[in-house]
Order: sequence, then C-alpha cells, then structure tokens
Amino acid sequence: MSMTTMNNDVYRYQAVEKHILGMVENGALQLGEKLPSLRKLSTNLGVSISTVNQAYVELERKGVIESRPRSGFFVKQKAMRLPRTESGPTPMEAPRPVTRIGLIQTVLESVGGTDTNEIPLGVVAPGTPLLPLKELGRITAAMIRDNPERALAYAPIPGDDELIRQIAFRSMELGIPAGPTDPVITAGCMEALYLGMRSITRPGDTVLIQSPTYYCFLQLLETLGLRVIEIPSDPEGGVSPAELAHALKTFDISACILAPNFNNPDASLTPDEAKQEIVRLLAERDIPLVEDDVYTDLHFTPKRPGTYKQFDEKGLVLLCSSFSKTIAPGYRVGWMLPGKFRQKVLEIKATTNVSTSAPGQMAIAEYLRQGRMERQIKRLRNAMETQMDTMQLHLERHFPVGTRVTHPRGGSVLWLELPKQVDSVELFFQARAKSIGIAPGPIFSTQDKFSNYIRLSCGAPWSEQMRQGIETLGGLATELAQK
Amino acid sequence: MSMTTMNNDVYRYQAVEKHILGMVENGALQLGEKLPSLRKLSTNLGVSISTVNQAYVELERKGVIESRPRSGFFVKQKAMRLPRTESGPTPMEAPRPVTRIGLIQTVLESVGGTDTNEIPLGVVAPGTPLLPLKELGRITAAMIRDNPERALAYAPIPGDDELIRQIAFRSMELGIPAGPTDPVITAGCMEALYLGMRSITRPGDTVLIQSPTYYCFLQLLETLGLRVIEIPSDPEGGVSPAELAHALKTFDISACILAPNFNNPDASLTPDEAKQEIVRLLAERDIPLVEDDVYTDLHFTPKRPGTYKQFDEKGLVLLCSSFSKTIAPGYRVGWMLPGKFRQKVLEIKATTNVSTSAPGQMAIAEYLRQGRMERQIKRLRNAMETQMDTMQLHLERHFPVGTRVTHPRGGSVLWLELPKQVDSVELFFQARAKSIGIAPGPIFSTQDKFSNYIRLSCGAPWSEQMRQGIETLGGLATELAQK
Repeated sequence: MSMTTMNNDVYRYQAVEKHILGMVENGALQLGEKLPSLRKLSTNLGVSISTVNQAYVELERKGVIESRPRSGFFVKQKAMRLPRTESGPTPMEAPRPVTRIGLIQTVLESVGGTDTNEIPLGVVAPGTPLLPLKELGRITAAMIRDNPERALAYAPIPGDDELIRQIAFRSMELGIPAGPTDPVITAGCMEALYLGMRSITRPGDTVLIQSPTYYCFLQLLETLGLRVIEIPSDPEGGVSPAELAHALKTFDISACILAPNFNNPDASLTPDEAKQEIVRLLAERDIPLVEDDVYTDLHFTPKRPGTYKQFDEKGLVLLCSSFSKTIAPGYRVGWMLPGKFRQKVLEIKATTNVSTSAPGQMAIAEYLRQGRMERQIKRLRNAMETQMDTMQLHLERHFPVGTRVTHPRGGSVLWLELPKQVDSVELFFQARAKSIGIAPGPIFSTQDKFSNYIRLSCGAPWSEQMRQGIETLGGLATELAQK
Repeated sequence: MSMTTMNNDVYRYQAVEKHILGMVENGALQLGEKLPSLRKLSTNLGVSISTVNQAYVELERKGVIESRPRSGFFVKQKAMRLPRTESGPTPMEAPRPVTRIGLIQTVLESVGGTDTNEIPLGVVAPGTPLLPLKELGRITAAMIRDNPERALAYAPIPGDDELIRQIAFRSMELGIPAGPTDPVITAGCMEALYLGMRSITRPGDTVLIQSPTYYCFLQLLETLGLRVIEIPSDPEGGVSPAELAHALKTFDISACILAPNFNNPDASLTPDEAKQEIVRLLAERDIPLVEDDVYTDLHFTPKRPGTYKQFDEKGLVLLCSSFSKTIAPGYRVGWMLPGKFRQKVLEIKATTNVSTSAPGQMAIAEYLRQGRMERQIKRLRNAMETQMDTMQLHLERHFPVGTRVTHPRGGSVLWLELPKQVDSVELFFQARAKSIGIAPGPIFSTQDKFSNYIRLSCGAPWSEQMRQGIETLGGLATELAQK
C-alpha cells in the first residue's frame, strides 16, 4: 500500500466519523438509537466496510457510541450543538459605559502568568509546538546577524518597507483590496484595534459591538471612555443586518467593532452577503467599522471566508490583523488597512510608540518572502480542527447533562453553555485553584449575560494533561450544576 | 613615550582647549582680545608649554582664535552661549489645547524617512556606528536560537522577568528607588510616556510642561485631548520651583510632564535641589509627575544627575526611560517605574498592545546581564561630547552673527537661537530641500514662540558630509538673516 492510498484511507475514516457526529448533533441520530450497519453505511457513503468499521471503533474509543455484542453500535452521547438564536430584532438596552475591567483584569492575569504548569484552556494562541519555532528562530537570527543596522535603527512609522510590501501582496492574493503601501504595521492586532478605535471615536461616543464579544474590545472601549450598544452574535449566523439596521435607527452610533469570522468567543461567522449588507448600511450613514480579521486564516471551510473590507467602497472599514495567531504571538507584529483614516492612525501611532519593533518585522517579512506562510497556516488549520474535535468529544464525556457547545467552522475556541445554575465566574476561580485556565462568560459582555457560559481555547495540542484538565473541569461544573 | 603618557597629553591639550573656550563663552576673553602667553598659561594650568601650544594650534585650526606674527594669539569668534532667562515668575497664558500636530507631522516624516542620503541633524538617536551593532546583534541571534519558545510566545504584560530584574537592579545601583518587580516594560520611552499620561489624566485636563518641550509630548497631549500650561525651561537652570509654585496657585493643574536632565530641545538640567522642591510642591497637592529620564545616562558631568523619582515619597512620580538613546532605537524597548499607578498602567498596556515584543526584551536583558551596558554608555558619552564640541566649533564658523547656542552638560542636542528675522520653519523647508534634516523651534511649544530657534542633533559621528551640511545650513540661515 502506497503512502498516498493510506493517507486517503485515513482521510476517509475521519470523514465517516464526522458524518456520524453530524447526524448525532443535528438529531438525525438520537441518544440510544442504533447506528446504520457497517455494510449499509459503506454502500451509502461509497467507502469500504473496513473504513466504516475504523470510524465506529474510533467513535467508540472517544465515547460517542458504544457497541453491544451481537446488536451493533448505539449512540451513547447527547447532542450538544448550541441552537440558533431566536430571530427578529432583540430588545436593546440604552448605551452604557463599560465597567468590566476589574473582572477582566483578573482573567488577564492568567495570560503570560507565572504559573507555567497551568493547563492553557484560557489563552487563545496556538501552543508553542504549533509555532514555526526553529524555522522562524533561524530566520530571525540570520536577519539580525546580516542586517544589524536595519534591526537596531528606528523602523519607519508605518512599518518596515519589505513587510508592508509582503502584507499588501498577500492581502491582494486573498481578495482583500490593498494598495502596495496601504498596510500600517502595528504591535500586534491589539494595537491595530486601539489605533483604529482612537482614530474614529471621541470619549463619550457610542460604539456598536456584537454580543458576546472579545473582552479586550470591552477593556479598550472602557479605557477610551466609550459607550456600548450590543447586538446579538449568533453562533450559527453571526451578526444580522436586520439587528444592525434596527440599532442604527434607534441609537446615535459613531462606530462599530466587529469580527467578520470566528468571533471570539462564540466563533460565529457572518455570511459574506450579510457582511456586504452591513457595510452598505454603515456607508449610508458614514459610520466607520473596525474589523478584527485575526482568526480568518484558521478556517476549516474549503474557501477562506470574506472580510467586511472587501465590500468597502468609501474607505470606512479599518481591517486589523496580526501574526499572533499563526506564527509568533511574542513578536507583537500586526497590521491594519486603515482606509481613509491612515493619516490619523499614523499620528496616534507616533505618539504611542513611534514605530513597531524592527527585528520581528524583518523576520516576518523574510518568512513571508520565502513563501512559508501558507504551509504553516495549512498545518495550523489541520491541527486546530483536530484539537477542536478531540476536545469536543471529551467535553461530551465529562460535562454535566444540559451542556451545549459550539461546532465552529474555524478559529480556535469553543463556547460552552452550561446548565443555568452554574456560575461560570465561580467555576473560573475553582478551576484556577487547580491550575486550569478558562474564560468565564460575563467578561464577554457589558450586560449581566452569559453567567453560565465559558470559553475554552483549543490552541494547545491535545495531551493527557489536557484530558485530565477537561475531566477535572467537567467535574467542577457538574458539582456546581448540582448545587 | 608610552601610550599612557600620550593619552594623558591628548587629554590635557583638550582640557586646555575647553578652558579657553569657556573663557570665550563666559566673556572672560572678548572678541579680538589677546590670549595669555604660552608660558603664562602653562604655569597657571600646570601643563607643559607644548600642551598649551597644541591647544592653541587646534583652536586656530577650528577658527576660534588666530595667530598674529610676533604678537601672539587673539580671539577671532564671538561668544555664543545662550543667556539665562530673566528671573521672576513669567506672565502665563491661560491653559490652551494643543494644535501643533500638522507641523510636527511634517517634521516627523523625516524620522525613518526614505531619504537615506539625508544629513541627520533632525533625528535624536545615536548614529548607527555608535550602537553596539555586532555585539547586540550576536546576543539577539543567540538568544532567539537558544530560546525560541520564549521569543515566540507572549511575554507577560509587565514584561520579560529577567529584563525587569536587570532594570530594577541597575536603577537601584543608580540611586533610583525601585523594588525588584517595579519596572513595567514598554515599547520604547514613548509608550511609557503615553501609558503614564493616560493613567493620570482625562481629556480636558490641564497639564504643566516646560517650554520649550519635546514635540512628541505636545503630540501626545493633543491626541489625548489635554490642555497645557507652559513654564520656562532655562538652558542653564532648568525648571524653577518658583515658576512651578506660581503656576500651581494660578491654574487647576492635573499632572506634569518634565525632563529632569538634558531636556529636549534646550538640553537644560534642573538642579537636584530644585527637583526635590518641585516634587514636594506637587506632593502637597497630590499632583502626579511623568518624568522623561531618557537622556540622563548621556551626562558629561562626573556624576550622573539625579531624577525626580528619587525624591518621590508618595508614589506620584512615574519615571520613564528606554534603551533607544543608548543601544537599540529599533528594538522599541523602554520601561517605567509607575509608582502607585502601576495597576492602571497595566490595564491600559493590555488594551494597547498586550505586551512588549519578546525578542528585543530577551536580548537586552542578556546584554545587561553580561555587564556590557556601562561600557557602552561611557563610550557613547565620550563620543557625544566630542561630536557636540566639534559641531559647536563649526556652527560658530558658519552661522550668522547674532547666533547663540547652548553648551549642554549632557544629552545629544544643541539648541540654537538665530537672529530674530530668521524664520526657522522656512529654514527647515529650505534645508530639507537640500537633504538636511533639522527641527524648527515652533514645534517645541504650543505658543507662537521660538520662531528663530532650531534644534540640531549631534547623534551622528562627525564627517565631511556633516561639515558640509553645517556649512550649507549656516549659509541658508545667513541668507534668511539678511532678508
């Protein structure tokens, strides 16, 4: 058997496994129901009986199904998919200032904390084994050794020329409109978001966000003295143009900050048609939109989903992204396509840190120039999808009845709804005491929402330690559910 | 003659040269006056006649004095020292918003610009030949190669542990009070200043600054929506506690931003007793002070001048500094001792860029750990003093009558007062057209002041190109003075 055939077979049994999981999730196969026979499924799917058998064995090993002697395979686990949000405009609260920093700060202390034994379910970054450690380390060392002047002298305010060129080129390849000198290099995506929001708002302005939203957005809005309107983010459908239109009619909104794909924490993806309609609605009122495109490269879908930017005709969309979720979180290199706000962005950048650290920019420019990025992203996508699948299976095994979880089409986080009575902040503190890092739901909204939700990161490669962490966490959640 | 003796002689003739220059500057020797005879000065100073002769020959070569056959040496150049500002509280204008960004932006575009042939009299950073290019390049490459995980993963929000330790240790050695975990690492001093000002002010607040002041302070205050009160910065005496007390009584001041030593652009040094009194006056009213300590290491005085921080008993002083003026501008690594505002600083840091780029932090920590810093600073101090001396001599030769220049005791900039009729912004544009970068006076104040002042950087090693640049610039200034 050649390697190619074997790889195909591996692919096939995983496809069968997913097919069955899908049927369990969407209710086509109910708890306790018997699975199709090996022969029947083999015929239906056009794969060998041994491939189906391999998938069933794997699903049994993962605890999703069980075999009963002389009877066949039966569904052992509940369906856990988060349902679609109720449709129709949601009643909205008046704009409110953000006051979440205290709680968020407690959570953030876990990021880069000193507890090196912590099980990293809280930090959203690829685990170090997934980063191109040696490759990028070698390129960085060589670039600094060969170009010490360029490394030690100030980089230009907009960024290293070669990196700007590389990012513009890659953006155009991905269908994101960018002139060759449009990108502005930033200290990670966070600085891009910060520069974007500073450029388009003044203290006291009202900003539209999706809910749940990334807690760092809330921190940013709080430190900038902004007020917030939340519209629902649906795990399946993303942001609804109807909800947005309703909010625009009701409130005086100055700016938006949205994630086009795999929103942190609910991993929701807004369909491209909805993105186009949202950009149109905002353009009617000249309202700028900051978009956080940092997770889009981690799509499990065959095609890369679109961005808001690609529908932007008036220069109102400020696309923000970085290399932190793909190759080098610690280098703090991100970028933005600032549309018509470029001059303002550069003014603020100059008074924040003058320019971005040069060595990281040079190294990443060279990494891109050598064409290494796409292979790394592909590797990461495969790893993330596998890690997410594995974690989902273990969640199903260890979490209390009534738990529901998202099934994202990309990104690296899972969003769990626990039974109503579980206080996720309490769970956060209990987990932290056992060196398990998670993110509790309430930090993802300015309102008293998501008190029984948690976000888990799937960035770290699966390990026995991770399995134990999930088991412990599930045990804690089960205890809280029984209180 | 051994090398040691020769070096001593070199040192001696330079000392004699400085002695004569000092007498010319303070008026002890007037234009056209005869210098002491070789024999007389030799006796007075306790050096050999040949050493005095060497100094006179050098001064003649530089055009400061001239020899007349059979008569001796005579002063050929005018005294050029900037005089002390008039004493007594200065009438102050009401707080005003800052609106200098347009002009400053034009100047900043020269920083890291694409004109690589530009004569760098505008950029305040040591020229690359003065940076430890190979040494730090080698350390950086080795650190990244040997610790790829630490380089690629997020650094902790307050900074790399080892770098924090090293900075705390060096601060304590310099007599600046700092606990072992007090320092917060930032993306250069600019980010430290930004985090400091964000932590202690709200938009609309009034901030006290010295005048002239670093234009990036003004940009920062403008982008933060702050108002400004300017009190005089005297090239000789720095900031006067009486002026400050007067301003505190007259206006509702929320915060201060001051440079303790070698203020950019006038290189003024505030005496330590005045610093102590200023800290006391501010502490009475609980007013926080951000101090920009970035130039103090470049002192030409035997002892490092003090900081405001060392008199701070209430945690109201936020000391900001960086490695940009000593070893690696492009690494963007700075730090602050944030006093009692640490928590707030970290909150804002988290929403600005999460943490500082890791590779530069690691490399600089190792550079400090290997004990290389003090030698580099010493080398830089000597180079800066020599470059400044040389530039002063050439300024005197080429600039129009009536020009006055500071004689700083440290730092790397000279502040020139040109004849009243010279418009320094016009001079800036004319110089830029000839690829000479300078900083025009009006960008250093919110008021319409310093229209006939310019700042010249002495960071780049002296060269024939620099000499030509000064000659061309002097010619342009002379033409403008004759208009």
